[in-house]
Amino acid sequence: MDIAAVNVLSYEDFVDVFGNVVEKCPLIPAAVWSCRPFVSVKALEAAINEFIDALPESGKEGILRCHPDLAGRDLKSGTLTRESLEEQAEAGMDALSSLEAARMARLNEEYKKRFGFPFVICARMNEKAAILQQLSERCQNERIVERTRGIEEVKKICRLRIHTLLLSDRTFKL
Amino acid sequence: MDIAAVNVLSYEDFVDVFGNVVEKCPLIPAAVWSCRPFVSVKALEAAINEFIDALPESGKEGILRCHPDLAGRDLKSGTLTRESLEEQAEAGMDALSSLEAARMARLNEEYKKRFGFPFVICARMNEKAAILQQLSERCQNERIVERTRGIEEVKKICRLRIHTLLLSDRTFKL
Repeated sequence: MDIAAVNVLSYEDFVDVFGNVVEKCPLIPAAVWSCRPFVSVKALEAAINEFIDALPESGKEGILRCHPDLAGRDLKSGTLTRESLEEQAEAGMDALSSLEAARMARLNEEYKKRFGFPFVICARMNEKAAILQQLSERCQNERIVERTRGIEEVKKICRLRIHTLLLSDRTFKL
Repeated sequence: MDIAAVNVLSYEDFVDVFGNVVEKCPLIPAAVWSCRPFVSVKALEAAINEFIDALPESGKEGILRCHPDLAGRDLKSGTLTRESLEEQAEAGMDALSSLEAARMARLNEEYKKRFGFPFVICARMNEKAAILQQLSERCQNERIVERTRGIEEVKKICRLRIHTLLLSDRTFKL
């Protein structure tokens, strides 16, 4: 699917395809449909990023709060979104040793208690050990630094999800 | 559950409870959690309404586009959210005659084609006949009028969903 095919999608089909490029925030692609036609895939990504940047700080925190913990309750209970499940599995989050799992759980709790939103990282771009290390390091940051950093990661995740969707058979079937 | 109990919820429990008070937009309650403590249920509603009002026009359209059609494909395929299903059933949307269903489908398409978002109305506050009449009348409005009107209806739906949740056993169990 190329950008010309994207530009002719009805809002319903657009939200069906791109509804979860920002985790559990179909509002964002649904809003960005107003900006079509997009001259390129990059322009679609830019429109999403601009929408996110224009949100108040509470809105950015809201986006982060729609994300599941890494190796958290949603992975255990099988309630992750398809995209999150694939990403977490790719980074080995479904195959932690019991020591790693305990460390991850402790650090996730520490992070959430400190910041009031979860640790967000583009799992596709990181290995298990790097994720644990970054989680540990980022727990020490200031809140405003982490809000900004989390949103940067959201944008990386979004870009990879868009590219995956455009290459996917599922998308072509629409 | 009263406002004191709401105010002590973690963001995860808050989003679990209130995540769908605006249809498929958990981002909104997740953002508004930043504004706690709320002095009253009215203050919680006001915080949600203010967040919505501060969105750019594309964002308001995005909210509308997250709503299903009345008596539409999601009702037929059983993929409505629990809240929407209850509301549509209450307004008799699951028991239209074939003539009513055909009229509803035709008007929904006309509305979406004209405005680029779906017809949104607080089904709990309207009977079947009134819904069909309003859909027919509102198809004639200007786009900006309908965007504003749709968002007013979103706020009514939200208020009723909050009140239902606060009275519900499901919520108490958290």
